[in-house]
Amino acid sequence: MNTTPAYAAQKKNSPVKPFSIQRRSVGPKDVRIEIDYCGVCHTDLHFVNNDWGMSEYPVVPGHEIVGKVSEVGSQVTKFTEGDLGAIGCMVYSCGNCSSCENGCEQYCLQGFTATYNSPTKDPGGITYGGDSKAIVADESFILQIPDSLAIEGTAPLLCAGITTYSPMKHWQAGSGMKVGVVGLGGLGHMGVKFAHAMGAHTVMITTSTHKAEDAKKLGADEVLLSTNREAMSNELGTFDFILNTIPVNHSIDPYLDLLKVDGTMCVVGAVEPLDKVNAAQLMFGRKTLAGSIIGGIQETQEMLNFCAEKNIVSDVEIIAIDQINLAFERLVKSEVKYRFVIDMSTL
Amino acid sequence: MNTTPAYAAQKKNSPVKPFSIQRRSVGPKDVRIEIDYCGVCHTDLHFVNNDWGMSEYPVVPGHEIVGKVSEVGSQVTKFTEGDLGAIGCMVYSCGNCSSCENGCEQYCLQGFTATYNSPTKDPGGITYGGDSKAIVADESFILQIPDSLAIEGTAPLLCAGITTYSPMKHWQAGSGMKVGVVGLGGLGHMGVKFAHAMGAHTVMITTSTHKAEDAKKLGADEVLLSTNREAMSNELGTFDFILNTIPVNHSIDPYLDLLKVDGTMCVVGAVEPLDKVNAAQLMFGRKTLAGSIIGGIQETQEMLNFCAEKNIVSDVEIIAIDQINLAFERLVKSEVKYRFVIDMSTL
Repeated sequence: MNTTPAYAAQKKNSPVKPFSIQRRSVGPKDVRIEIDYCGVCHTDLHFVNNDWGMSEYPVVPGHEIVGKVSEVGSQVTKFTEGDLGAIGCMVYSCGNCSSCENGCEQYCLQGFTATYNSPTKDPGGITYGGDSKAIVADESFILQIPDSLAIEGTAPLLCAGITTYSPMKHWQAGSGMKVGVVGLGGLGHMGVKFAHAMGAHTVMITTSTHKAEDAKKLGADEVLLSTNREAMSNELGTFDFILNTIPVNHSIDPYLDLLKVDGTMCVVGAVEPLDKVNAAQLMFGRKTLAGSIIGGIQETQEMLNFCAEKNIVSDVEIIAIDQINLAFERLVKSEVKYRFVIDMSTL
Repeated sequence: MNTTPAYAAQKKNSPVKPFSIQRRSVGPKDVRIEIDYCGVCHTDLHFVNNDWGMSEYPVVPGHEIVGKVSEVGSQVTKFTEGDLGAIGCMVYSCGNCSSCENGCEQYCLQGFTATYNSPTKDPGGITYGGDSKAIVADESFILQIPDSLAIEGTAPLLCAGITTYSPMKHWQAGSGMKVGVVGLGGLGHMGVKFAHAMGAHTVMITTSTHKAEDAKKLGADEVLLSTNREAMSNELGTFDFILNTIPVNHSIDPYLDLLKVDGTMCVVGAVEPLDKVNAAQLMFGRKTLAGSIIGGIQETQEMLNFCAEKNIVSDVEIIAIDQINLAFERLVKSEVKYRFVIDMSTL
């Protein structure tokens, strides 16, 4: 067992503070990573604040982890000491259910073991995440980082990246398709980059005029202001696929109206109940409303390789660990372009 | 022009009464059908009562029409005098849009011309439906009835039938799949028959214990009582596809819980906004909520042929035209097994 410094929230609504955690020893199939960078996801804040009533304190957040391999177990085949390695939102799953067998560990029928705040055989009873000096996990949940990717910007790919890449692939975003991305934040900015890189006609759908210029730099062919009735009306029934990254409850009806016949809107941000859904909008056009979370491990590796090929990383603002509480405040106000990443050398 | 006796609602909330309407003369591509039977759909009542604020009185309802061809235009190729013919919910569409070109006239981008209460070049400005002695329509919207089908039970296939058949085909209900049908009414009873005939493990999902026996006779392999928590809990995450025929607003969350990963629930009954939808239920399983209306003309013919092959018709209660107001009352109380059909010889 190793004692590792980490930053943890020790009770509800308390700021995140220095803390020591025990990491399990490196087992035969385990890899230990010394963490260089860890992205800050909105989910981290939800767990720190116990917004979903499921936090087990101390919470050590962080599931966008990149670093260097410092130790490998005797049966490890994919990594050797000194390699780069990355961990996203999952560190284990049953491996035997239909979802796991289909490479969809994120939908493991037993429930996957989350990178933090998840029951585990690790010391302490729950997993501790990446806002820490090191992490130990089974190699099958550790991703390889292509050499060409800047690792600071790679960290957010492990959650924000795969969360947007996976549904785009599942619903086959690509050339000849018109794809909308609703909301320009951590998820949305990756959605725009991916839709563009996959060859789709990419439309940023936002309430904020001031985000238009940025959206175009990120790869949007068009910006559609959802507060402009005429503009929305002009694009009714023209979208093949819409990725909705809005992280809170909202009315989805205006976006369903934008879909073509047989079009799909996939929600990846809001885990809250959505406002009443107008079933007639689905019916008169055989439209679908779907949801998706992260992606499978093999797909996450595919996403990282795609990013290397297309020269994509996340746009990040690097912070020191003692800025985490301020970063959470700014996150709530959407004052980050587009993801905070903690430099773990500052811990 | 022809004057035809019909039964019409002449103003909001008035009973349906005898009325005379003008039918257009038979044009080169038109067929005139002397109506033998016409099914009574819940939509008829919504239009009679102007529930959706779009009724144009007098409303002549009826879009489950079967009868005999009495006159054909000079360019008609599919029908000759004396043939059986059927008309469903549509009598025209643009023919040129992507939906029409894909055989999905029901999603015509210009909006299809509905069999009744729809703007048209017919005399009168709107279309008049099948609660009438005769109807004239373009042959491309008239279906051929296979000889082996009893025509009384065929009438409801034109709406209740195709409304349930089309989504089952679209989402590929068949052998090896577990398919749920929610609600046992006009639509639901056809849904059970089709799911069974397509080879799916068919589960009737209902609130009513007393419907269990009937559901099994219709082809259900199982009946799941949605008011029984333990029974519902036992079937969590086990359905590939659910057809939801409930005609009013309700909470869909309990049904979404029944879906497998990547499962779909398709709403065909409720055109009202649904209660808040729990997006997390969609996300944690990449589930989809969809909607669908009727089906295309070619698909409707395919459905009729399938019914002939599988010996399927709707279970009906034949009424005389002067029982229509009572029938509407009983319809609201779900007191019909499972579709009223008007014998038009009584007009």
